[in-house]
Order: sequence, then structure tokens, then C-alpha cells
Amino acid sequence: MKNRIGIVGGGQLGRMLGFAAKRLGFHVTVIDPTPNSPAGQVVDRQIVADYTDEKAIRTLASESDFLTFEIELTNAKILDEITKKGIRVNPSAKTLTTIKDKLLQKQFLAKAHIQTADYKEVKTSEDIASVAEEFGYPIMLKARFDAYDGRGNALISKKSDIPAAMQKLKGRLLYVEKFVPFVKELAVMVARSTKDEIKTYPVVETSHVHNICHTVVAPAQVSAAVQKKAQQLAQKTMMHLKGAGVFGIEMFVTKKGDVLINEIAPRVHNSGHYTIEACFTSQFEQHIRAITGLPLGDTNLITPSSVMINILGNRNGAVSLKGVEKALAIPGVSVHIYGKAETKKERKMGHITVVGGKTKDIYKKAQQARRYIQI
Amino acid sequence: MKNRIGIVGGGQLGRMLGFAAKRLGFHVTVIDPTPNSPAGQVVDRQIVADYTDEKAIRTLASESDFLTFEIELTNAKILDEITKKGIRVNPSAKTLTTIKDKLLQKQFLAKAHIQTADYKEVKTSEDIASVAEEFGYPIMLKARFDAYDGRGNALISKKSDIPAAMQKLKGRLLYVEKFVPFVKELAVMVARSTKDEIKTYPVVETSHVHNICHTVVAPAQVSAAVQKKAQQLAQKTMMHLKGAGVFGIEMFVTKKGDVLINEIAPRVHNSGHYTIEACFTSQFEQHIRAITGLPLGDTNLITPSSVMINILGNRNGAVSLKGVEKALAIPGVSVHIYGKAETKKERKMGHITVVGGKTKDIYKKAQQARRYIQI
Repeated sequence: MKNRIGIVGGGQLGRMLGFAAKRLGFHVTVIDPTPNSPAGQVVDRQIVADYTDEKAIRTLASESDFLTFEIELTNAKILDEITKKGIRVNPSAKTLTTIKDKLLQKQFLAKAHIQTADYKEVKTSEDIASVAEEFGYPIMLKARFDAYDGRGNALISKKSDIPAAMQKLKGRLLYVEKFVPFVKELAVMVARSTKDEIKTYPVVETSHVHNICHTVVAPAQVSAAVQKKAQQLAQKTMMHLKGAGVFGIEMFVTKKGDVLINEIAPRVHNSGHYTIEACFTSQFEQHIRAITGLPLGDTNLITPSSVMINILGNRNGAVSLKGVEKALAIPGVSVHIYGKAETKKERKMGHITVVGGKTKDIYKKAQQARRYIQI
Repeated sequence: MKNRIGIVGGGQLGRMLGFAAKRLGFHVTVIDPTPNSPAGQVVDRQIVADYTDEKAIRTLASESDFLTFEIELTNAKILDEITKKGIRVNPSAKTLTTIKDKLLQKQFLAKAHIQTADYKEVKTSEDIASVAEEFGYPIMLKARFDAYDGRGNALISKKSDIPAAMQKLKGRLLYVEKFVPFVKELAVMVARSTKDEIKTYPVVETSHVHNICHTVVAPAQVSAAVQKKAQQLAQKTMMHLKGAGVFGIEMFVTKKGDVLINEIAPRVHNSGHYTIEACFTSQFEQHIRAITGLPLGDTNLITPSSVMINILGNRNGAVSLKGVEKALAIPGVSVHIYGKAETKKERKMGHITVVGGKTKDIYKKAQQARRYIQI
């Protein structure tokens, strides 16, 4: 009986994958450098090691029938080797390699004729100035690797911003993107199983604060035409992107109603957390189904709408959770706390999901609940 | 920050309580005699010891801010001592003592003027024959203690059945109940928090096979009048029963439409598993909220109806799970596998919940899904 899942990464995504996998009866092991990690607390075993630790990944592979990851930082080269030894790794090492380098990701999308913002590789300040001439200001300077939660972006509005942007992303491989004057940001979670079944979740609207996902509204409050474009883009992307698992596809909507792909995450994603309460099948269960060859679940909403709001840290230090009792007194509010021992400014510490009622009303409830909670 | 929960018992109920508690950010420890128990796999720590082990319960108490149990077999005397030392134990040791002795439970209900089947304590075959004269056959001979899943009941249809019934329940303290010729069995889950808030879940219909809960349909397909009587009975019971937590109240409906209490479980209950997918707040999260002084959550259905069906073992031996892929291919089906290493005849190994659609249709889906799964 093949029922052992190995996950590289033991953060909140690993934790929620763990809940889903355990519910289905799997044995779950995670790798994470922090002992007693969020996922380590709720699964069978944690290997305490870095995400890129060769020995640890090989140990995990030897103990697993299915290997996956919740973080792009892992070691794609070793995953590739492991795949060749016959362990199922999903998403595939090849897909991971394409996506974790944002420049390669752009090239992949361009090759598939999928609309994104214009981009160009840059190395020096002179390169940037020259691309800016071509695209026109403002432009985004972006790191090719490890650029999640805004930690790899710098906005350049005028030529004199270039030195500070270069300083912020010093020592990293870079590219420039034309700034898209978007009116809304959307996201679509998509799953492909190892049996090549594909299912798309509803189009949702995301709001970012300081480049970190802050609020998600499902379904997105956009026209049917925009919804359709977003769904089609997601499906088209999946026609070209190989490998099984759940993918988060982030998009921009322009004033004219054009929809462009911003970026792809090769994993369960913050913009899909709402699916736990709001959909027949959560993104986490869907990922487990997808990588283990089970049929994909129903992605429809079970409730008319849902709002998810992140609980981000606002100081550095030991966790001291307060106000949950006030948040939970609001009907329809679910609170998820990730079990991290230390809080940090803008660290993802938990989230709130609200269902049951009109979008406007549950949005207010979500905000109220968020104000009550201190961590 | 008081966030440590101790649970006596590490079976499937402890496992599902564990999922709910971990999601809310609690630290969870369980006591269970089987290493790597269903709950032990998904919580922070398992103490491997018997449910009644004094030393283990004291250790658990010293590491917990809130103590609860998922099994009535625990040691009420020690729980009482622990309560006196200031650890919150819920449901209270007193409530547990009243409920775990089914004869005391009957006396408690009689004192509160809550309708149940007629009953009488018996010790000998002669006592049974004499009560049968009074009540008329058939009667149920029942063990006062540890009588869950039908392991403490014997039906006596005629005088000559008495010796076999006595043999079945040999060595146990006994009482006799008048047999209620019920047309349906109902159950209502009820929660009371340490802040004395009370919330009732929808009335559900349960079917038993060999005295083991088999199928649950929510909401119950009964008249509004019967629904109301069941709700009122549950509420009345909670007016008299002390202690916080979730309670499962099982009832009989007679041909005339009378509703009688069959028995009370001082814990989350098999007839409430459907709440995970079908209600705003699951019975498991509700229990955690109740015992930790958090506000109770919305008990309403989030979907029009739901059917839960148990996955019981049908042989003795090591688990070998098959057919999950077929069950999960049916839309709206959720599968819960409890992670037990060994299956046994009629052992609870998992359950299936179906939501989304008309009761008749999802009932069929649940049965189909059940047929596919072998364990």
C-alpha cells in the first residue's frame, strides 16, 4: 500500500497539506529547519534540516512513495535525480526549475503565447536605464529567484530610483518588468493530477499590502467577461505546464479589462486558503489527491462567497495570542493559527476565513475579526 | 497564554479533536495505550498509557491548561482530584460519573422528568424474569458500564432468552430497559461552553447495524413536530446536565411520534461527524471552543443536507486500504481514514461524508462510496 507522503517544507502550507493528508489516512513526513515546525506538529515525522539539504531530501525520498514541496526554495537538481530513481515527485523537478526562476517562467509563458507584462533580463544599472527608455517608467526591478512575498521586487518610477533598487536587490540575478497599471489582482488555483485530470477553482480577487497577500475575496467581483478570460488563461497555462499538483496563478486586470499573468506558484497558495471552508474540496486535499493519483475533487463553492484575511505579525518576538475569543464570537468566522513560536513583522502567523452571507457583509466581518486578533 | 489541551483517549475522536485544536493554534497532548494512535499521529505529543492510568493522567494534567476526554472509560476519581487542584476538566468529573453509569444516567433523567424507556436495576435471572413480568417482553438487558457500540446490550424476547443474555453480560453490573418499539432513531449534538452558552445542532437520523452507528442523515427526515420535540428534549437535558463540552443525545421516535431519550454520550459522537463538512462549525471545533471558554460557533448546516456512513472493519488483520480512488471520484464525497494499523470486525476504521444535492441522491452516493472502500 503506497501511502507515504514526503513534503519539503514544514510551514503553514505544509501544515494544511498535513491536515488533509492525515485525514485521508496517509503517513506524512516533512523536512524543515525549525524544530517543531507548523507542519511538524501535525504530521507523523519531521526531519530537521534545510530545504536544500541533499542528505535530508534523499532520506525523505527513501521513506516516501510520493514527494512534494510547499516551498520553491528546494533543491530541484536532487529532486530530478530522485525522480529518475522512480520516486514520484510532483510538481516535477522540471516544472519547479521553470517556475522558480521568474525569468525562465516569463520565457515559458511567452513561448506559450500567454500574455504577461513585457520583461527583459538586466545585469547593470545601465541595462535598467536602457530598458526603462524602451518600456517607459515606471518599471519593476525583480529578482529571478526566491522572490516571494515582495522580498524580491523594487519599483523604479524614475531614473534616480535605480541605485536604491539595485542596492535592495544587491547580489541577486535580475530582470525588469514593465509596470502594469492594474485595477485589480486576481488569482486562480488550478490542479492537475498524475492522471492528467485538470480542475480549476473559482476566480478570486486578491489585495496585497507591501506585496504580501492580505485579503482574498471569492468569487472575484468582476464582470463575467473578465472571469472567463482569467479561467481561460489558467487553463491555457496548464496546457503547457507539466507536472501534477495544485498551482496558484496570479493575474492582473487592466482598466480596459485585459487579463495578464503576473506569476505562477508551483504549489498551494495563500490565495486558495479560502477553499478549506468555502469549497467542496480544499486546495490542500486537492494537492494530495493530485500527487497521489487520486481523482480530483469538486472545486465549486459550497457557500455563495467567502473572504480570507491574513494574520500577519506586526512586531518581532515570542507569540502572545489575544483576541481570538472576540473574533470567534462573529458567526461564520474561522480562525487558523499556524503554531509558530516567534512572530515577526509581516510574517504569516495565521488567517481568518468568513463564509455565510453577502460578500460586503462578510468582508466587514473579516476585517472586524482581524482587528480583534493580536499575535 | 493558556493554550495547552490534554485529551484522555487517542482514537478517532481524539484525532478529529486534534485537527480542530491544532487549527486554532493549541498545543495538544493525548493519552492512549496504543503507540502511534490515531490522535497521537496528528498532535504534539502522546503519552503511551492506559486511559485509567493515574500517573499518566496526572502528568497530562501537569502539562495542560484544559483537560478533556474522548472516551468514558477514563478515571473519574482522578479527574475530580485534578479539578480540585485548579485544572479545568470538562465535561466535569461529576457529569462523567453520572453518564458513564447508564443506571445513574437513567435516574438523572427521571429526576429531571425527561422521558426515557422504563428501566430497573437487576442482579439475578430471577430479577430479570420479574421485571419482564412487569414490563412485558421484549426487554433489553444492559450493562451499566462501558457499553458502547452495542458491546453491553442483549435483547430478551422471551423467558428462555435470559440465560444467554446473562452469559453475554457475565460479571457486569446490570439493569433492564423496557424495549421501545421505535420507528426511527434520532440524535442531537449539543454544546455548552464554560461560559454557559448553549448551542444545539440540527436533529439527525441515525441507523444502527448490530448496535453500531452505521449511517447518519442530516437533517432528519421527520415531521416538524418531531424535530421540535427532539430539540426541546436536548435543551431540557442540558438545563440539568452540568459541565462544558459537546454531548451526543440519542433518541427514539415511536410510531405515535413520541420522542424518548435513549442515552447520552458526554463527548463528541459518531452521529456528529457530518458536521465537519456540513456545518459552519464542526462538533470537534465546538468542543474545543466549549472547554477553553471560547464563544460557541454557528451550528447551522452550510449545505442543505448531508449523509455520513461509517467504514467498519470486516475482518481481523493489518490494514490494507483499497478503493478510495473510486469513492473520491464521486462528487461531494469526503473520505476520513483514522490511521489505525489493525482492522477488526466492526471496528471503526473511517467514515465517509457526502454533501451537495438532495438527501436521496447523496444517500445513494454514500452507499456507493462505502461499497468501493475495503480496509
